[in-house]
Amino acid sequence: MDQPLMDRVREAALRLQGELADERTPFVYDEWYVAAFDHEVTRTPLARRILGVPVMLLRRTDGGVMALEDRCPHRSMPLSLGTVDGDHIVCGYHGARFGCDGGCSSVPSQTVVPPGARVRSFAAEQLGPLVWIWMGATPPDREPPHLPWISDTEGWRASRERLYLRSSYVRLHENLLDLTHLSFLHARTFGTPDYASAPYESKIDAATGHFSLLRRVVPTRLPPVWAKPTGLEGVDAARITSSTFHSPALHEVHARFHACAIPEDEQPSRAIRTAHIVTPETATSTHYFIHHGRNFALEDGEITEFMHGQLLAAFQEDIDGLEAIERNLANYPPGTAHEISFRADGPSLAMRRWLKKRAVG
Amino acid sequence: MDQPLMDRVREAALRLQGELADERTPFVYDEWYVAAFDHEVTRTPLARRILGVPVMLLRRTDGGVMALEDRCPHRSMPLSLGTVDGDHIVCGYHGARFGCDGGCSSVPSQTVVPPGARVRSFAAEQLGPLVWIWMGATPPDREPPHLPWISDTEGWRASRERLYLRSSYVRLHENLLDLTHLSFLHARTFGTPDYASAPYESKIDAATGHFSLLRRVVPTRLPPVWAKPTGLEGVDAARITSSTFHSPALHEVHARFHACAIPEDEQPSRAIRTAHIVTPETATSTHYFIHHGRNFALEDGEITEFMHGQLLAAFQEDIDGLEAIERNLANYPPGTAHEISFRADGPSLAMRRWLKKRAVG
Amino acid sequence: MDQPLMDRVREAALRLQGELADERTPFVYDEWYVAAFDHEVTRTPLARRILGVPVMLLRRTDGGVMALEDRCPHRSMPLSLGTVDGDHIVCGYHGARFGCDGGCSSVPSQTVVPPGARVRSFAAEQLGPLVWIWMGATPPDREPPHLPWISDTEGWRASRERLYLRSSYVRLHENLLDLTHLSFLHARTFGTPDYASAPYESKIDAATGHFSLLRRVVPTRLPPVWAKPTGLEGVDAARITSSTFHSPALHEVHARFHACAIPEDEQPSRAIRTAHIVTPETATSTHYFIHHGRNFALEDGEITEFMHGQLLAAFQEDIDGLEAIERNLANYPPGTAHEISFRADGPSLAMRRWLKKRAVG
Repeated sequence: MDQPLMDRVREAALRLQGELADERTPFVYDEWYVAAFDHEVTRTPLARRILGVPVMLLRRTDGGVMALEDRCPHRSMPLSLGTVDGDHIVCGYHGARFGCDGGCSSVPSQTVVPPGARVRSFAAEQLGPLVWIWMGATPPDREPPHLPWISDTEGWRASRERLYLRSSYVRLHENLLDLTHLSFLHARTFGTPDYASAPYESKIDAATGHFSLLRRVVPTRLPPVWAKPTGLEGVDAARITSSTFHSPALHEVHARFHACAIPEDEQPSRAIRTAHIVTPETATSTHYFIHHGRNFALEDGEITEFMHGQLLAAFQEDIDGLEAIERNLANYPPGTAHEISFRADGPSLAMRRWLKKRAVG
Repeated sequence: MDQPLMDRVREAALRLQGELADERTPFVYDEWYVAAFDHEVTRTPLARRILGVPVMLLRRTDGGVMALEDRCPHRSMPLSLGTVDGDHIVCGYHGARFGCDGGCSSVPSQTVVPPGARVRSFAAEQLGPLVWIWMGATPPDREPPHLPWISDTEGWRASRERLYLRSSYVRLHENLLDLTHLSFLHARTFGTPDYASAPYESKIDAATGHFSLLRRVVPTRLPPVWAKPTGLEGVDAARITSSTFHSPALHEVHARFHACAIPEDEQPSRAIRTAHIVTPETATSTHYFIHHGRNFALEDGEITEFMHGQLLAAFQEDIDGLEAIERNLANYPPGTAHEISFRADGPSLAMRRWLKKRAVG
Repeated sequence: MDQPLMDRVREAALRLQGELADERTPFVYDEWYVAAFDHEVTRTPLARRILGVPVMLLRRTDGGVMALEDRCPHRSMPLSLGTVDGDHIVCGYHGARFGCDGGCSSVPSQTVVPPGARVRSFAAEQLGPLVWIWMGATPPDREPPHLPWISDTEGWRASRERLYLRSSYVRLHENLLDLTHLSFLHARTFGTPDYASAPYESKIDAATGHFSLLRRVVPTRLPPVWAKPTGLEGVDAARITSSTFHSPALHEVHARFHACAIPEDEQPSRAIRTAHIVTPETATSTHYFIHHGRNFALEDGEITEFMHGQLLAAFQEDIDGLEAIERNLANYPPGTAHEISFRADGPSLAMRRWLKKRAVG
């Protein structure tokens, strides 16, 4: 292929990319995002930047969650550096006092509160182990996503972790929607060589913004992380995985395993589920919360530890890879690195097209 | 307050802010600034960036101060990396030699000095412990500020410190002009709870650019830093403080203390004075020199040490707070973080309006 | 000189500078650059940014060098993080496989390679210890520079080093073309006081882009780095040096020494040569390869070590100086720091004018 032809390929690819979300696309504000795990929100203010906005999170006296913009409207001091007094936060600079709704109730150096002294407050709701926040300019028009298997621990054994990714959240969703990378990025952890070429079905629902991919690797040998805990070590097994993009904030990966030698419905259920919870911090950094559950070997604490360690090693490979990509792209003038997509990118491209539409209207 | 109303509040506030100096306002060049303490200027060149300009300071053989732009006009080597020869600095790259007036007197590789080979020299004057510099394009039209109590040690015991602030110098002046923050930012050091709500008088002289605030906290209990050295521990005392903005470069805080039980003029004078000397380095970083004096317990070295340590702990709280604000503002697109001012901000707002006018004409 | 006159000098100087290459000038792409020393290119991919472009270098199975743009065209993963399979590199993200010509030969998740899946490949040739690369958009129209004394070790004893410079490559060439700086920047290493004022001849060939300077320091005392190895310690000696700019990528410095008391042709030849190999990484950072040879004391390993250590100390002075300049210029708005040139800058100015013309056409 000669240079002029390559230039035309590049231009055509960049034209297509113009319709897809990437790190230069505005955030989708009208959405529920996870601000924190439940245990992170205490009576000591927590400062966390969410969709570019500094936010202060505080456990209210009634157990609820108070979420305010983390900037005193007087002289921009982070409110999270102030002191807590009941359900009020007192700014650590000049003592302005703000309540849960962001209203200023007193200014110590004067008797009247100045008009307009108010910070943005954000709707925040705790569901099970997750604290959800709504960053939109208008009030939430729906409930936060409900994941019963996360909240109701009956029948599931779980572990959790908060990770941090120096890369665009769009790339993380794309990573999760196309698991053909398991054979390569995760060759040393939970990938197997047959994964990339296994048959798959994709579902694209651009109306509701649900995108998923189902992949059946049958027969296969399970990697150590699943083989040992399921008891399917060294036998032909089925590994059936689905990735589902629920929202800019949430991705679920489900998998089930069974021995090939016996009909699936004659075996005990061996299922795992991972909620990949994605909260953009800035255009190129992401809070990344993991909630992982399994429905087998429930009482075995060693298996919990073993699987958690193995999974985190694999997710760190994703982080390392996505950060390498983000750093690599920083070598190029913005918007000049073209992408040639593969067939397995179908759901991911649809997802990025949908994100871009939602973000820029 | 609903979002449209908050938006209007924000827009109105930003309109007002447009008239006030902040980190985006040009510096006031036609002014004396402190470049260094006397002991910092020696026969070894000192490199210091002042109002954005790299400056080289050198003690002349006659004891005066030589101040040149710290960039050889040949190939931009910092002259401060060169060698000193009498009252000349010899560039460490190709040996061009410059005198106190910035003129180039020789270039070793040729017999004639190229026309135009000259660096900017700055007027510099030492007054007591302070080395003042004039960064304006035109020569100084006045003398550097004279603070007799700094230069004449008779009756005063002093201590000094050079601090560094990663924040706009405007924020430091604002901090100093409104001491209602003592009750909050300095709650653990020299603030007391009654400070913020004590009565005050402000003086605003926008013609000459003098702004001050007088605050009487009577009766109060003195914080340890003053209680112990004054002997007013555990008794009702008066604490009368004034902050005065003299120039973009200089702020003075005076305080006096006496026991409430006895008329003030029947007690020994117990006064402290702090010169807060403010030299912008860049838009968001500031050289911050402190000269502190007291007129009591003059011979007690332990009290000097005790007060110096206590004061520095308090000034570090200011630095920490102002740097937290500067970092917080970096989360916002420039000029989008609005401020709601309080009544005690009167002198500070006048000062910022005056600074803006002086800076942009 | 008053301020208005200085302003006019500055404006005139900046006008002239507009014709000269500096850190804001685009790179010269149609040129051979050294990508690496031979021993750096192995069967493990080497990532190196060259003229702003991330490049992956790999030793081919036939001993040749494979050079590809280090960005998978699928999702921008650095190919250098992938795995090597014969003369192919397999992307570590989704397994796309690329050959030496940059063509993609397979994508594991599908049977057909998507059209346009291709990365740029770069012509790369190894000559002696140097691996040359051509970064131009069109194929090379000439051979890489041939330096026989580097490749053919007969009669020469050599040492090498890869250095790194946080400064524009233009400044490094300028440094090398005007050795009057030896008396100052290298006063503690291989400079002598008489160097700066010694007579010189310059050759400027703006048609072919060859610029050189010949300097005769006679008689002089040799600095330790040469005095000891040549046996010319403590006697009047001749030091005759030429600097030659061959291309944006290559500078040669040759020197010869002899005792003044005897005709040069009656003495053994004592010559040194240094190839200063200059590969821009970014606008303000440079890969800097050194190949140094001598034609005397060939069998003395201690002398090799001694000279290598002394030379590196001197080249580190250049690096320190050029980095100080680059940092100093960062204090000024781009393009506002004017330069007053000296006579010895003749070849250097011609070189920068030529570079600018080549870069912007």
